[in-house]
Amino acid sequence: MSKAVCILGATGSIGRNCLAVIARLGSLFTVTAVAARTNAELLVEAARSCGASRISLADCASLDKVAGDRLKGLEVGCGQEAIVELAGLDEVDIVVNALVGAAGLAPSVAALKAGKRLALANKESLVMAGAYLMRLAAEREGAEIIPIDSEHSALFQLIRSQPAKSLKKVIITASGGPFRGCGQERLQKVTFSESLNHPTWSMGPKITVDSATLANKGLEVIEAHFLFGLGYEHIEVLVHPQSIVHGMAVFNDGSVLGHMGVPDMRIPIQYALTYPERLPNDIKAPDFNSLGKLTFEAVDEKNFPCLSLAYEAGRRGGAATAVYNAANESAVEDFSKGRIGFTQIPVIIERTLAAAPQVENPSLGEIMEADNWAREFAKGLKI
Amino acid sequence: MSKAVCILGATGSIGRNCLAVIARLGSLFTVTAVAARTNAELLVEAARSCGASRISLADCASLDKVAGDRLKGLEVGCGQEAIVELAGLDEVDIVVNALVGAAGLAPSVAALKAGKRLALANKESLVMAGAYLMRLAAEREGAEIIPIDSEHSALFQLIRSQPAKSLKKVIITASGGPFRGCGQERLQKVTFSESLNHPTWSMGPKITVDSATLANKGLEVIEAHFLFGLGYEHIEVLVHPQSIVHGMAVFNDGSVLGHMGVPDMRIPIQYALTYPERLPNDIKAPDFNSLGKLTFEAVDEKNFPCLSLAYEAGRRGGAATAVYNAANESAVEDFSKGRIGFTQIPVIIERTLAAAPQVENPSLGEIMEADNWAREFAKGLKI
Repeated sequence: MSKAVCILGATGSIGRNCLAVIARLGSLFTVTAVAARTNAELLVEAARSCGASRISLADCASLDKVAGDRLKGLEVGCGQEAIVELAGLDEVDIVVNALVGAAGLAPSVAALKAGKRLALANKESLVMAGAYLMRLAAEREGAEIIPIDSEHSALFQLIRSQPAKSLKKVIITASGGPFRGCGQERLQKVTFSESLNHPTWSMGPKITVDSATLANKGLEVIEAHFLFGLGYEHIEVLVHPQSIVHGMAVFNDGSVLGHMGVPDMRIPIQYALTYPERLPNDIKAPDFNSLGKLTFEAVDEKNFPCLSLAYEAGRRGGAATAVYNAANESAVEDFSKGRIGFTQIPVIIERTLAAAPQVENPSLGEIMEADNWAREFAKGLKI
Repeated sequence: MSKAVCILGATGSIGRNCLAVIARLGSLFTVTAVAARTNAELLVEAARSCGASRISLADCASLDKVAGDRLKGLEVGCGQEAIVELAGLDEVDIVVNALVGAAGLAPSVAALKAGKRLALANKESLVMAGAYLMRLAAEREGAEIIPIDSEHSALFQLIRSQPAKSLKKVIITASGGPFRGCGQERLQKVTFSESLNHPTWSMGPKITVDSATLANKGLEVIEAHFLFGLGYEHIEVLVHPQSIVHGMAVFNDGSVLGHMGVPDMRIPIQYALTYPERLPNDIKAPDFNSLGKLTFEAVDEKNFPCLSLAYEAGRRGGAATAVYNAANESAVEDFSKGRIGFTQIPVIIERTLAAAPQVENPSLGEIMEADNWAREFAKGLKI
């Protein structure tokens, strides 16, 4: 029987790849609903191409740009609530959450509460409210989180069939981004458009900037902490410029299992949909002979401090990881608008974290409060 | 409860590592019986150190070298039959078969017939009679084969929890041996003692010569064919001089899972004993940062033809793989005694294979006949 999928963030890079994966899998999956933030035209187009009958747009005003007859036959919602509603629809089996940023949290909660499989690309959900979401996934019948991030999909595939006690640590690889090897002088001059040239992955703008600062890797470390129940001392990051090895799991007998593949998000997207099955696609495995070599090096923590700030936030726990994420989102927005420089992003995160009140075992409400507080504080910083 | 282990080939490299692994695992395993080919002194010493009460020596004459009082309290057998007997002992749970060469086959058969776990380092067992042994393992209650070869242990760990249909091919890595990159002129001058200097693995002499000619990789390809039920077109060999990646499994979605570790046989030996558990030891995982890089290259089939000869024998099937193995054993013996040169080893294998009568679905008896025929033929070759 065909499984019903709801895709949140259907117009972005992950969303479009997800539509392509589902189209190729034939009748195994049906897209029931799609949602996006602002691009109404693209969203309607996506709905038409995949046959979804429900759409939701976060930004209601954007809907006006679409001619009325183009919406014919579609059930249309708008506003954040309408997106959350799609995530909990009775007829949906799998919710793909590919929204960008903190806006992804509420739909993740709704999907798990409704007992869905949450195919999660929105890493902010776990970064902000990992403990809460993991508890929901464990308690609700049918609820489960299958990661879409390539590193976490890799680790998920490697760890799941191994005795839990035998896992010693995980290694998340990082391409190092477009400015690997650059010193302060160069980094201070980095422009927004330069930061969008990722060497190996093709992704949306926010995550591409995060990859350049290594904040993305920081978010991934926090995500791995919650997803796999690992202490931060058991999560390591290693720079691997070829982006072929996505993750490694180190076991207590000296064995290391690694997941490799060309950098193509359709692999983890498909796995999150088909798990525990693994179905064929037309993506070729890397040709190791022609690759020649795989290299590994330590992270340059001095010039890319966003990663160690993430560890710091993670070790503080409570709402600190939500603060880290919100300060970073705010700083990246400022950077994208030319208001601050590339090297000021970590400075903003650091100061915001330093000023943030500690909140232990935060409720969802307290997490949202911490998020709001951090955005306001970050925006108000004079640097 | 402690599991009773019988170690065949207890005085060799694998056997001694196995004793060390078991000693470190404390009360989990007890060594009940040990066997070896000729080294009576070492065998008695091994039995004393691990507390085994039964020993068997293939070469009866060698027993005379041991003073009678040193055997006190030990149940002593000699001859090939006495080794086979140990493999089927009622009180034994796991038979570690680390014998060298064709002599390993009969004990493998006995262990499986008696419903034991066969921890298999003797690759010749599967090369000679793979179809027969796999059938035995499937049919006999309790019987199973867990590979000890590092490459096959790697693949076993990677494949076992994946949907069978999703496996596309496996990649077995080869260090390339001590003469990687050498041309004919150099290879023609290779001496036996030179061929014993393996760049990454410390192993017994026969397998070390086989690693230098790549016949060892050939035997491994055939072993993988039977162990994992894969067609030869789905088994690939890649040279990887660092010997860190031991095996890779390529799946139909573009994912590749790899098993890595320092080249230390205690890892696969322990895994074969403790599977499905994975228990701690003191072997460190590779430090990828200080390793720097992992490289891969194609096999030089022109200068190391033993590998393609193995594929050829494997594709012929029937008794041809037993012929390949016997011709190689005979040639390596001749090489070790200075009777032939290094580059004549593949010539002997090739000519023996070409002359061998084709035997389809051979019985164990026919396999032994083919083995004997090939040894005689190989010895008689004038080259």
